[in-house]
Amino acid sequence: MAEFTINERNRVKRGHKRARYDEETIYGILDSHFLCHVAYEVGGQPQIIPTSYWREGNRLYWHGASKSRMIVEVTSGKDVCVSVTHLDGLVLARSAFNTSANYRSVVCYGRPELVTDTAEFDRQMELFFEQLAPGRWPQLRPVTDQERKATGLVVMEIEDAAAKVRDGGPGDGDTEDVDWPVWAGHIPLTTQQRGPVGVHEGVRAALNHPLMPGYDWNNR
Amino acid sequence: MAEFTINERNRVKRGHKRARYDEETIYGILDSHFLCHVAYEVGGQPQIIPTSYWREGNRLYWHGASKSRMIVEVTSGKDVCVSVTHLDGLVLARSAFNTSANYRSVVCYGRPELVTDTAEFDRQMELFFEQLAPGRWPQLRPVTDQERKATGLVVMEIEDAAAKVRDGGPGDGDTEDVDWPVWAGHIPLTTQQRGPVGVHEGVRAALNHPLMPGYDWNNR
Ligand SMILES: Cc1cc2nc3c(=O)[nH]c(=O)nc-3n(C[C@H](O)[C@H](O)[C@H](O)COP(=O)(O)OP(=O)(O)OC[C@H]3O[C@@H](n4cnc5c(N)ncnc54)[C@H](O)[C@@H]3O)c2cc1C
Ligand SMILES: Cc1cc2nc3c(=O)[nH]c(=O)nc-3n(C[C@H](O)[C@H](O)[C@H](O)COP(=O)(O)OP(=O)(O)OC[C@H]3O[C@@H](n4cnc5c(N)ncnc54)[C@H](O)[C@@H]3O)c2cc1C
Ligand code: HEM
Ligand code: HEM
Repeated sequence: MAEFTINERNRVKRGHKRARYDEETIYGILDSHFLCHVAYEVGGQPQIIPTSYWREGNRLYWHGASKSRMIVEVTSGKDVCVSVTHLDGLVLARSAFNTSANYRSVVCYGRPELVTDTAEFDRQMELFFEQLAPGRWPQLRPVTDQERKATGLVVMEIEDAAAKVRDGGPGDGDTEDVDWPVWAGHIPLTTQQRGPVGVHEGVRAALNHPLMPGYDWNNR
Repeated sequence: MAEFTINERNRVKRGHKRARYDEETIYGILDSHFLCHVAYEVGGQPQIIPTSYWREGNRLYWHGASKSRMIVEVTSGKDVCVSVTHLDGLVLARSAFNTSANYRSVVCYGRPELVTDTAEFDRQMELFFEQLAPGRWPQLRPVTDQERKATGLVVMEIEDAAAKVRDGGPGDGDTEDVDWPVWAGHIPLTTQQRGPVGVHEGVRAALNHPLMPGYDWNNR
């Protein structure tokens, strides 16, 4: 099983039993969401921007306006940190101290670059669509050169990464607290995908492709 | 309506029509989640840590091991950036370019400090519990001094903040694309709170308090 190298940037010190460095776990968590948080520094001020992303191989991709601060800053040769988090539940122990949350989270590090090749731009955007709505890309009104120019596509090779995973009930079952008379357990939280809401204006074409089939909404 | 001052740190430049600076919107978004992402810088490297938080007035609170890197670093007098994001849906327009996501997000800035007063520590932890499970705090095995010592409680006065909100269907209904023959609309994503899963070991007390009543899981 391929693993990310553990070093000073990604070594999980707190709760290291929950740490995972294998590609299978890390890529699995990355592939089951499309919302990440990107952190970078501008003039001494850390900034976070929530954004959509996708993955191919060991690379993360995201996009925005080519002139936006986020795109310009993250492609200026800086170290960037990207995090993806699933909040899976609340864990209620018999003590306040052992109260916790269930989650799967990944933190990745790299130095993003701009994708400037048009064919690669189109291929990546189609890949992004293939995650969200497979088969939709060729049905769409085609991308224009002006739109390509307005769009900054970012690629980040994942240099270092770590995952942390917690699941199940409270961990105080083997402590003195086990007989404290209060309800204990966990409350799962899942993401639910609701039925599609069509537009009212214009031509009303049928929906003929799957919607977000690969994410793990609804099935946990 | 009280508003945050707009300055160079929090001025939304891209999609400024979606920007909100009023306390009502910002506090409303903050109060409907308990997962945030905290970004800070350590030796030139931006770091993100996903963590649980709560709000009282214009202050955000979070906690961790008093010796953990995150707690030590964010309370060392640095500027920190905290973000809270609800992913509300996927928006499918007739063009790739106008494809989007629905969301409510907040970005806040401040310089966190440690809470060292024991009475305030207990009051804040009870407040945190009141969001998650009102009435549970006094039922729990009480916090010990050793546990208090092991815990770092962080307070961050929100100096600057901005929210961005997008909802509804695609925005291409008034463009030439409106008659392009592809399905268009949006797919809502919500957070669902499942039924509580009790533990098997120890005393089995009844569940006699509400679970996360104030978050907007399930009702959007
Ligand atoms: C679920 C989700 C998915 C998104 N997907 C994409 C995407 O794929 N591509 C894309 O370009 N953008 C996406 N966005 C929007 C993104 O968060 C930024 O608003 C946008 O990229 C512009 O960033 P900027 O730093 O260039 O903005 P600027 O307007 O220059 O940012 C200036 C300041 O405005 C505030 N601000 C900016 N964005 C937000 C925000 N979202 N919430 C609260 N305050 C904010 C911050 O204080 C920031 O420092 C997404 C947002 C969400 C919540
Ligand atoms: C939904 C959720 C809620 C949480 N709530 C809390 C809370 O209330 N209090 C609390 O103390 N912690 C909470 N955590 C855990 C938190 O993310 C950190 O793991 C913890 O605070 C230790 O942080 P640190 O920087 O001191 O850790 P360290 O172990 O020193 O971090 C070292 C490195 O390990 C990696 N790493 C650390 N945490 C994570 C992670 N979560 N996922 C992937 N890689 C990671 C990073 O590369 C980091 O640079 C929560 C996590 C999630 C996902
Ligand atoms: C109110 C509800 C609470 C929730 C939801 C909560 C949640 C969490 C979570 C998710 C973690 C991270 C554990 C991990 O790394 O996987 C954590 C860590 C921690 N919590 Fe809490 N907590 C709560 C209350 C408390 C209270 C009241 C105390 C102290 C009295 C406390 C003390 C700690 C400490 C010390 C850690 C660090 C553990 C470590 O890194 O070694 N927590 N908490
Ligand atoms: C594949 C699915 C896509 C999704 C889910 C998506 C989502 C988003 C979102 C959520 C934003 C932020 C808008 C806001 O600020 O509220 C955005 C911005 C943007 N997207 Fe996309 N997008 C997609 C595809 C594309 C494609 C294919 C292009 C270009 C051909 C594109 C070009 C842009 C540009 C230029 C912006 C910046 C808008 C601005 O800040 O002015 N997007 N996208």
